[in-house]
Amino acid sequence: MIQVAVFGYGTVGSGVVEVIEKNKEMVNKKSGEELNVKYILDLRDFPGDPYENKVVHDVDVILNDPDVNIICETMGGVEPAYTFSKRALMSGKSVCTSNKELVANHGPELIRLAKENNCNYLFEASVGGGIPIIRPLNYSLTAEKIEAVTGILNGTTNYILTKMEQEGADFADVLKEAQEKGYAEKDPTADIEGYDACRKIAILSSLMTGKNVKYEDVYTEGITKISAADFAYAKKLGRSIKLLAMSKELANDETLAMVSPFMIDAEHPLHMVNGVFNAVFVRGNMLGDSMYYGRGAGKLPTASAVVSDVVDCARHMGKTIMCFWDAEDVKLAGIETVSRPFFVRVGETDAAKVQELFGNVEKVKADGLEDEFAFITETMTEKEFAEKAAKLSDMRSRIRVENV
Amino acid sequence: MIQVAVFGYGTVGSGVVEVIEKNKEMVNKKSGEELNVKYILDLRDFPGDPYENKVVHDVDVILNDPDVNIICETMGGVEPAYTFSKRALMSGKSVCTSNKELVANHGPELIRLAKENNCNYLFEASVGGGIPIIRPLNYSLTAEKIEAVTGILNGTTNYILTKMEQEGADFADVLKEAQEKGYAEKDPTADIEGYDACRKIAILSSLMTGKNVKYEDVYTEGITKISAADFAYAKKLGRSIKLLAMSKELANDETLAMVSPFMIDAEHPLHMVNGVFNAVFVRGNMLGDSMYYGRGAGKLPTASAVVSDVVDCARHMGKTIMCFWDAEDVKLAGIETVSRPFFVRVGETDAAKVQELFGNVEKVKADGLEDEFAFITETMTEKEFAEKAAKLSDMRSRIRVENV
Repeated sequence: MIQVAVFGYGTVGSGVVEVIEKNKEMVNKKSGEELNVKYILDLRDFPGDPYENKVVHDVDVILNDPDVNIICETMGGVEPAYTFSKRALMSGKSVCTSNKELVANHGPELIRLAKENNCNYLFEASVGGGIPIIRPLNYSLTAEKIEAVTGILNGTTNYILTKMEQEGADFADVLKEAQEKGYAEKDPTADIEGYDACRKIAILSSLMTGKNVKYEDVYTEGITKISAADFAYAKKLGRSIKLLAMSKELANDETLAMVSPFMIDAEHPLHMVNGVFNAVFVRGNMLGDSMYYGRGAGKLPTASAVVSDVVDCARHMGKTIMCFWDAEDVKLAGIETVSRPFFVRVGETDAAKVQELFGNVEKVKADGLEDEFAFITETMTEKEFAEKAAKLSDMRSRIRVENV
Repeated sequence: MIQVAVFGYGTVGSGVVEVIEKNKEMVNKKSGEELNVKYILDLRDFPGDPYENKVVHDVDVILNDPDVNIICETMGGVEPAYTFSKRALMSGKSVCTSNKELVANHGPELIRLAKENNCNYLFEASVGGGIPIIRPLNYSLTAEKIEAVTGILNGTTNYILTKMEQEGADFADVLKEAQEKGYAEKDPTADIEGYDACRKIAILSSLMTGKNVKYEDVYTEGITKISAADFAYAKKLGRSIKLLAMSKELANDETLAMVSPFMIDAEHPLHMVNGVFNAVFVRGNMLGDSMYYGRGAGKLPTASAVVSDVVDCARHMGKTIMCFWDAEDVKLAGIETVSRPFFVRVGETDAAKVQELFGNVEKVKADGLEDEFAFITETMTEKEFAEKAAKLSDMRSRIRVENV
């Protein structure tokens, strides 16, 4: 029997207990041994809960119990999860986490600690919720040199953008509705400003390169400036606007990592990823393009990913599963040298200036927006674009364009 | 150093050697040890090939060499691959294969032999080419009860259907063009009649249920009857026609497995899978829907999948990786009790009969097809539909409808 403890009995933590219970037969079979949830760590009591007698308030009860083999850390936030995880690993207990904040901040250290103590630190649930993406990167695409990873990694923003697209609505209205429906938090900053996606791409980017990508250094732009007018043009152009988190290997051993809204065309596999769904698009040097799609959040999908890590730990007791994420920092490229086309909206009064700066671009008009037009530039560097854009007197928006 | 032998120096086999060579650094790092291709088994000689001195014609040279740890079996066909694989496994050498024919015919026996000899029989490349799907089913979705797997598993037919859709062309013309371009074989039977997809879904279905699904028992219908007229209506209906291979858990412990063209709507994640791309859509009881998308064939993608199995074997020397596929046959459901809507095309002279048999259906007309119309039925069993359809005097086509 393998004894499991769950740290944090919130949405994901209670989901973990539910998955282990509901899919008991399958989970035990795949683990090769029976799993038992022995403890649940939470500050609160849960009177009436079927597992109320497993709840403890003192982490030492769990960390000092030699029977406990695996910890599911679903507390979120850096502290006290960080301290608890370190102590667990140092006592040879594997830790499976959904905590992207902690993984993005201290991944390499916790992975090293696991290795030193012949146990595992696994984090499938930290990116893409229930979509298996960490394990495919670590176990499946092992014959590949991965050249790029591009993801829709935040369900809240993708829900908002999809609604804006489908209903022609403005950002503020859709955000309000999403908050009422519980798809967006009361304080939505982490989602709409791209901070959540930023932590996730830092994790994927680290696994892609095998080095450490500091999330603080990842260029991050949210979706707050995207408007109904932008979507009106996108529709005319047969395109969609998505918040993409991307990481690419560039020349000179540099890596580009960024989060930003992008205009993508209908041929792009991420174009069909709507609502709360997430997806990760991976380009390998042998395999070419592949994509992993599914529910990026939610109690049971996320819990399922945590439990898949528990099964993996159970299959590898006493043995550390390989994971390449060194503490050495990756060489991050500045975005200003990266080239791409840009979508631009300007007032009609800028027409001559546009011609002068960007040449003979194709003017696109949208209904009800008589005093302006839009166009897509040639491929140019961010720096070059910024310099030209600064010379426009009435630029109303600019969105990066990404082609497959 | 881990010694590898490649059986069959054809397209995939030479791709395996190329991937191991080109991505040496990555492959060795992920394997934890250096890989070396010691032998290539082929009846032919390859004068001038950089690996010509590794070519041997006698399998015994390889099987009797205790240094060889891992075999890549990329010969295709049942014999002699079956005999060679058995002998390799019985001497404790792991086998990684792209041979769907062999896996579909003898999977459970070869998996058992591997277990008995503390080695591995892995077959990631046998389904979906380079798309990681076997490993996600075996390692990632371990906390899930998988309820259904639906795939576009054959690139040739998907290429043909995509071309028919985009160009309004007829089957025979597109097939001819595909043959000229090398996307379809001279004898295209195995692809266009669905036999290839049938073997692949038998494999996925076996992994889903943990029991054996005999491919001979899987209901299989190809794409030869699909016409430009069918696509004209599909377009009107905002739908597409795809050759789907599916497996579903039904009540009473029965499993439905079938290959058939289906009409799917634009909301279905498989709708966007065009050309030679493949995808597998998986429904789990906790995770909900997920999808795995990529190149389903081709030298390097398929070889990359074989090499990912080699890396997995290298990481697990002397240890058998869990795989649940018992020799016990699964209880396959007959398709006649399965319910779904059907798309039907009939001559206008059948209009009254349609009303009598199917009620007030919505008539759909397509340009240039004045003497006929189409409709989609209510959900009904295959049996019920077949009985009604037999009473129509001028039914021109019927295509199953699949909704997400």
